[in-house]
Amino acid sequence: MDVKIPLSEKDIPKQWYNLAADLPSPLQPPLGPDGKPITPDMLAPVFPMNIIEQEVSTQRWIDIPQEILEILYRWRPAPLRRAVYLEKYLKTPAKIFYKDESTSPPGSHKPNTAVAQAYYNKVFGIKKITTETGAGQWGSALAFACKLLGLECKVYMVRISFDQKPFRKLMMQVWGAKCIASPSDQTEFGRKILKEMPDTPGSLGIAISEAIEDAVHDKTGQTRYSLGSVLNHVMLHQTIIGLEAKKQLKMVGIDKPDIVIGCAGGGSNFAGLSFPFVQDKINGADIEIIPVEPKACPTMTRGEFAYDHGDTACMTPLLAMHTLGHAFVPEPIHAGGLRYHGMAPLVCQAIVEGLLTPRAYHQLKCYEAALTWANTEGFICAPETSHAIAAAIDEAVKAREEGKEKVILFNYSGHGLMDLTGYDAYLSGKLADYELPEDSLKKSTACLKGLPKPSTKKSGKW
Amino acid sequence: MDVKIPLSEKDIPKQWYNLAADLPSPLQPPLGPDGKPITPDMLAPVFPMNIIEQEVSTQRWIDIPQEILEILYRWRPAPLRRAVYLEKYLKTPAKIFYKDESTSPPGSHKPNTAVAQAYYNKVFGIKKITTETGAGQWGSALAFACKLLGLECKVYMVRISFDQKPFRKLMMQVWGAKCIASPSDQTEFGRKILKEMPDTPGSLGIAISEAIEDAVHDKTGQTRYSLGSVLNHVMLHQTIIGLEAKKQLKMVGIDKPDIVIGCAGGGSNFAGLSFPFVQDKINGADIEIIPVEPKACPTMTRGEFAYDHGDTACMTPLLAMHTLGHAFVPEPIHAGGLRYHGMAPLVCQAIVEGLLTPRAYHQLKCYEAALTWANTEGFICAPETSHAIAAAIDEAVKAREEGKEKVILFNYSGHGLMDLTGYDAYLSGKLADYELPEDSLKKSTACLKGLPKPSTKKSGKW
Repeated sequence: MDVKIPLSEKDIPKQWYNLAADLPSPLQPPLGPDGKPITPDMLAPVFPMNIIEQEVSTQRWIDIPQEILEILYRWRPAPLRRAVYLEKYLKTPAKIFYKDESTSPPGSHKPNTAVAQAYYNKVFGIKKITTETGAGQWGSALAFACKLLGLECKVYMVRISFDQKPFRKLMMQVWGAKCIASPSDQTEFGRKILKEMPDTPGSLGIAISEAIEDAVHDKTGQTRYSLGSVLNHVMLHQTIIGLEAKKQLKMVGIDKPDIVIGCAGGGSNFAGLSFPFVQDKINGADIEIIPVEPKACPTMTRGEFAYDHGDTACMTPLLAMHTLGHAFVPEPIHAGGLRYHGMAPLVCQAIVEGLLTPRAYHQLKCYEAALTWANTEGFICAPETSHAIAAAIDEAVKAREEGKEKVILFNYSGHGLMDLTGYDAYLSGKLADYELPEDSLKKSTACLKGLPKPSTKKSGKW
Repeated sequence: MDVKIPLSEKDIPKQWYNLAADLPSPLQPPLGPDGKPITPDMLAPVFPMNIIEQEVSTQRWIDIPQEILEILYRWRPAPLRRAVYLEKYLKTPAKIFYKDESTSPPGSHKPNTAVAQAYYNKVFGIKKITTETGAGQWGSALAFACKLLGLECKVYMVRISFDQKPFRKLMMQVWGAKCIASPSDQTEFGRKILKEMPDTPGSLGIAISEAIEDAVHDKTGQTRYSLGSVLNHVMLHQTIIGLEAKKQLKMVGIDKPDIVIGCAGGGSNFAGLSFPFVQDKINGADIEIIPVEPKACPTMTRGEFAYDHGDTACMTPLLAMHTLGHAFVPEPIHAGGLRYHGMAPLVCQAIVEGLLTPRAYHQLKCYEAALTWANTEGFICAPETSHAIAAAIDEAVKAREEGKEKVILFNYSGHGLMDLTGYDAYLSGKLADYELPEDSLKKSTACLKGLPKPSTKKSGKW
């Protein structure tokens, strides 16, 4: 079996998979300030209507426009790879496969939805898109997509990452986007935060608030906001990852993986790989599906399942999700993409249903896994991705101990070539583990009091 | 036709191609300090004997050990890709193909020879390898190879690149190598240079001298030196690029390209892609083969074809090559990999024979080409690679003007994700063009006086 399992362009999936169609219990709707489900037109100042339609759709399969595929062909179908060198090092009977999303021009899975969103905005007549970015993966992906589709792009980048990862900003500039540190002086909310906390490292929640404010305040009506994770349509666009992986596994005679793993910050790379397998699990397949998060930002493993805002300024509708509270400001761990207080509602509803088994890891363990990866497979992974690798290693070791030939599949969400300062900190012993203290958690979730509560009823059998 | 043309592992070339077997005139031998051809044993303190044997071999095909292939499978066979988006943008009838060498873990073609050299050193019982690096591509490739083969690695990095590209140094450290700025205080020659020119940006020539001194002064006899370009065995190891490309072109029904292009600093990525096509040209095929260099370091287009040292301290044997003189200190242009005073003797002998048509470009033109590439194909290329892209664009435009459906093939030698400071300088208008003044050239080639002269006889018909 080759290390790389390519898929030809003609076999690229022509439809995205929508998990909302198959969830045992219906997805709980976003709520407005009045506690009532919001209507599509309430979102119209923020998103174009064609994307809002996807956001609320419960159609199982949604066609991918040919124009989007033509752009994706630059790197898709992405290779599925077998980590034979890691397997050998671990002396495991498990087969470890990974979907290599690092081969896109910005180096992660993010352009899968960036291209789709830029396309739908363009079709709707929008000229400019604003967004936020944490680690910079999303911002550079949207910059890339906007450049190829001829749209303007403005990115609010969380200050800690803006400072730690100057190359990501330069990357956005190569693709013609404007990138500024958040909180910034360009929005009312940014100025307010700067006044209150001039030294704040920023947060995704703050950056989201700024980007939305920027979009809705544009009087020409030709600016919209774009989100790189969390929302249903983002999960939808990412399912091309898992749909490709399924075809590729079949090509090498594998009917189904035993274990599917992805790191999860807002949930999009995890959902992209796993949702097509969640469908199989709903239909009876025996698959363990594991989203992995950092212990410093333990949304799924310690957060409440609650209605909460997606941003710090409470501008977004209330989403039913696992959350640490919208006021949560995470420690500046290096996995910037995993520092979000919430989690995609589709992922959370699947957790409520028992379809997923989330876990949390410390960052030192993850960097150790990243080094093992670099020294066996040879590639340098993103700090976010190292969480998935650490889980894959744990599962492969367990398979060895149990003497079982399991098939493990994980998402290699991005390379770490722009994240070498994190490796430097690790190698020089400057990194420490951080576990969110119980009283900090209590404090940050206090803002959830008084907000409506979603149902936690489990209707499935998992 | 797919954008990506993969090749399966079973079709990977099992032998390297040695151009020395087919050159119309025999390669002129390296000379010792006495002006007489050096013997293999004189190189023994610097290189292991199995590599020296390859260096002097005139055997046409040389087997690639299976152990090397097993390591290369991590990214080889590398994809051949068609630049359909660039073609469309240029409205050219030409088909533009490129061999994507950026997919290796260090991001360039360099590991093709790094892995081979580390392997042969290991087989010979060597424990530690020293080397120099310019842009950092080579140093990180050797660090990577040494890590996978369990050898120690020490890299002398040209100071200007060490400062401009901190991430390359971190990359080497992730793979366990020691990386220090050259000139350094760790060698006699380095200390001498630092005393004379404390503010020197360094040069490849100086760094080579330091790395050789470090290797030959190790009294245990278990250290050797490794060079990432210029020498015959390096060109040999790189021919896997062109041999793969040939197979991939055949897969899409193309018998031969009309034009083959590579950027050339020491010559290795250019030779790697082009030598298998040079063989075809010697055998009668009509192919234009173009090495591209910067006008700031115009070795092939303005240098003398002379016997010269490969390093500044005159420690290496004399090589018959196009050279700007071993005392040449290049301007700090951003294409660090193209700042070498000499050129691979095999490439130079092919130039003498009229088999190649070198050209030189200014850096602003090359960055413009890099931006065109990023905004059409979507990927961010290395500043070295931008020279090949600029030539490919020129040839595609010419094909449009002539109305000819030419097949253009170039080598995408590496990505530019670690080179974004160069893009930043370009985008903010801080870069200027630099043409080597005639009197500087005269001054730097003055050191060639008194050295033996190679034959410039052309025995072929090209």
